[in-house]
Amino acid sequence: MSLASSPAPLQLRRLGIDTYQEPVVFLHADCPVCHSEGFEALARVCVSAGARSLIATLNVVTTSLVRMDEVGLSEAAWQILGSHHDEPVTVTHPEPLHSFSAVRAKIYGQAFAPEDLRAVMADISAGRYSGLELAAFVTACASRPMSDDETLALTRAMADAGARLAWPERPVVDKHCVGGLPGNRTTPIVVAIAAACGLTIPKTSSRAITSPAGTADTMETLAPVDLTLKHMRRVVEHEGGCLVWGGAMALSPADDVLIRVERPLDFDSDSQLVASIVSKKLAAGASHLLVDVPVGPTAKIRTPAAAQHLGAQLRRIAGALGIEARIVLTDGTQPVGRGVGPALEARDVLAVLRNAPDAPADLRERALLLSGHLLELGGKAALGQGAERARSTLDQGLALRKFEAICRAQGGQREPPQSRLQRVIVAARRGQVQAIDNRRLAKVAKLAGAPKSPAAGLELQVRCGQPVEAGQPLFTLHADSPGELSYAGTYADANPAIQLSGGSA
Amino acid sequence: MSLASSPAPLQLRRLGIDTYQEPVVFLHADCPVCHSEGFEALARVCVSAGARSLIATLNVVTTSLVRMDEVGLSEAAWQILGSHHDEPVTVTHPEPLHSFSAVRAKIYGQAFAPEDLRAVMADISAGRYSGLELAAFVTACASRPMSDDETLALTRAMADAGARLAWPERPVVDKHCVGGLPGNRTTPIVVAIAAACGLTIPKTSSRAITSPAGTADTMETLAPVDLTLKHMRRVVEHEGGCLVWGGAMALSPADDVLIRVERPLDFDSDSQLVASIVSKKLAAGASHLLVDVPVGPTAKIRTPAAAQHLGAQLRRIAGALGIEARIVLTDGTQPVGRGVGPALEARDVLAVLRNAPDAPADLRERALLLSGHLLELGGKAALGQGAERARSTLDQGLALRKFEAICRAQGGQREPPQSRLQRVIVAARRGQVQAIDNRRLAKVAKLAGAPKSPAAGLELQVRCGQPVEAGQPLFTLHADSPGELSYAGTYADANPAIQLSGGSA
Repeated sequence: MSLASSPAPLQLRRLGIDTYQEPVVFLHADCPVCHSEGFEALARVCVSAGARSLIATLNVVTTSLVRMDEVGLSEAAWQILGSHHDEPVTVTHPEPLHSFSAVRAKIYGQAFAPEDLRAVMADISAGRYSGLELAAFVTACASRPMSDDETLALTRAMADAGARLAWPERPVVDKHCVGGLPGNRTTPIVVAIAAACGLTIPKTSSRAITSPAGTADTMETLAPVDLTLKHMRRVVEHEGGCLVWGGAMALSPADDVLIRVERPLDFDSDSQLVASIVSKKLAAGASHLLVDVPVGPTAKIRTPAAAQHLGAQLRRIAGALGIEARIVLTDGTQPVGRGVGPALEARDVLAVLRNAPDAPADLRERALLLSGHLLELGGKAALGQGAERARSTLDQGLALRKFEAICRAQGGQREPPQSRLQRVIVAARRGQVQAIDNRRLAKVAKLAGAPKSPAAGLELQVRCGQPVEAGQPLFTLHADSPGELSYAGTYADANPAIQLSGGSA
Repeated sequence: MSLASSPAPLQLRRLGIDTYQEPVVFLHADCPVCHSEGFEALARVCVSAGARSLIATLNVVTTSLVRMDEVGLSEAAWQILGSHHDEPVTVTHPEPLHSFSAVRAKIYGQAFAPEDLRAVMADISAGRYSGLELAAFVTACASRPMSDDETLALTRAMADAGARLAWPERPVVDKHCVGGLPGNRTTPIVVAIAAACGLTIPKTSSRAITSPAGTADTMETLAPVDLTLKHMRRVVEHEGGCLVWGGAMALSPADDVLIRVERPLDFDSDSQLVASIVSKKLAAGASHLLVDVPVGPTAKIRTPAAAQHLGAQLRRIAGALGIEARIVLTDGTQPVGRGVGPALEARDVLAVLRNAPDAPADLRERALLLSGHLLELGGKAALGQGAERARSTLDQGLALRKFEAICRAQGGQREPPQSRLQRVIVAARRGQVQAIDNRRLAKVAKLAGAPKSPAAGLELQVRCGQPVEAGQPLFTLHADSPGELSYAGTYADANPAIQLSGGSA
């Protein structure tokens, strides 16, 4: 009887196992709590230590990997509980997941009520849904399309499940890009132009999840981005804009959890995409939103019709929540600028802001187009005159001055690092560039070490339609270690990302 | 360069981590193959050793849990690859999962074509679907209901993805129960009666997955069940019937994989349930099938209307595949017989076969009802006269003789083991038994050690409607270790499974 009534105290142990975002705990098969609670592999368990607790998936261990009095934690679980590892630990059955019955009802054709979605999003944000349950929710939403009422309720529920920022001024503008093209780093330029023209633009960005660089990774090579909310507010107050990492702000945290399953499944619905975008902006306190939708065969949105459909729903939902949205369709057929990777993209951004003669023209023109729309949306230019105002702001050096001021306010501007090693990939023969595979190029840049090594990535030296000679450079790899340079080169040689007329390069 | 072109040979290592059926592999973050292939946590990877390979989910390890030249394997992965651990090991990107695009199309409303389902089932059987992908498939089938054509194609595809048995005789009869009630162990009795009456009934059964006992677990306390296909054929040839474990026969293996996600999600569609049942019987070579559908508030099927709907679809699909099916609705409000757990259920079965005066009447009557239907279905009794023939077969001892002959042919009959420890759970007060919670009772039996300890489980001493005095035994726990007896007792005390009039027992 003593086994069940007074079990040995349990201790947390960090196992150093990366299971991505899903918390996993490891208990020994002979651990008393496994017996007394009847736990089996893949059970969902609640682990509490001190004031914190988490719901995790259980793996049962039969070797000495964990002792009978230990609770082994994956990295995601350790991030939540690790600081409490010297406090008493309990492992129990979690509360039943009541909100999942609304997901079951949706699967069988019943619409979500607003309170259903509120409960589902609260549970998802708190990490109470398993991967299987998340996949079922995402699939149900895609196969039983949501009405505008449901999408609106979902968006509200997602924003309400996390923190909300509020700003004294209006308008508060924001921009978003659906589905990144490699190198499409217009945000720092757009923020600098908009803030230089007097708009309030408190921009929070993400780090890369599966891409070679997120806007926060690129900005971090130019200035600190890991600001407290208080520091961020001070920057916006003084400069009108900021360029910070949004991860610490917990804006629409359910979105970050849902992305974890949408990405490997490689599908989402327009409703979920709209809710994802608008909930983040609603939580960030935006009143006006510009959305860049690149359209192309290897981009997220493949046809103009699909982009129009998405845009219309996005305007409706954002509008119903008090956010005026404008959608801009852009060319998604090839990367933007030359650099792919944090520092290499930062160099392109600086070249455009500095009006350097060799600044990539496509990045400059795209940033001006988006800035123009944003100035019109925010009331700083008449309809059709935004692009002109953006151009003169950039050409006169006002955008550069504003960007430098923002960097100083965030903690000081710095120069992006240089890579230690380079290798040039050349055309095997003469021909014309017919297509560039965005996904393969992104993969090459990641194998070279981006974004973990900020200087790593690649520089693209050709554009679609351009004629090339045999031996002419197509792109240059940048890496900090010989191993990574080699991995990226081997992959690039075996998987040509640039297609020449009549065959591969 | 040498790192990428000639990596150190990798070695398999068993980590003893039970992840249930999902194979997981663990690579060190600094393992060369992680770099050269660009693997990240949760990537799907293909591990090959000798002639075998598997697709698994990757966990990345940053501690000394695995060395840089090791591939750590979960138990499910070790079962597949472990015997090849001294052969060269490679870890590569798996082939893209083309069949999942049909699942995506289904999500967006397109019906499955037969060749889609064939490809999906082949991939699922081969373990190429991740848990997330399985959850998406199951959810899509439930939220975009399948037509009869789709269900038929699914059933065929599931059966074709595994082994198929063929028998020289016709009819070949089989029986199945939808959603087990604790103790509902009619199968050994039904097989004995049917075979004694001259029917061919090559019965394959499963072990428990989450219940306290499967038919194979119960039978194993009476005779060997782990037969080769050749041995099984010999038993059926001589005795007309057998009672063996079907796990080694690989009949409709996709079904076993799908159950892994349907169970935690706690939903399935009629189409999936029908395909699951009929595909197994099609693969087992049945021509006639009897299906027992217990109906009750804590059973799988809760209303007669739901049972009728399921039954009609089952008859249509089975019929289209050349199997004549009959559905019998039975009482699913409380357990059947007295024992719950392998040996305890086996004792009930023996008591009925031996016509013992204390044999549980409900188990006997239910077995006779089902046997009667099966004799009619298989042409061994006229309509309405099957139950009578079953009764006389049992009463004259012919069923017992046949059962003993089957046990001998399978390797020899044995007596079920006795538990070492018992504890009686008594009524706290006087009252009448109002309801019995099947799920809680099953849980108590599992905590006591069933089915791992074959003698463990419980004996039920009351039925619904029965008056009880304070202190009267409600059920007796059976266990082989003091710890397990204690766990089961503690849980039973805290979670009354038997409800008395005016409150809990």
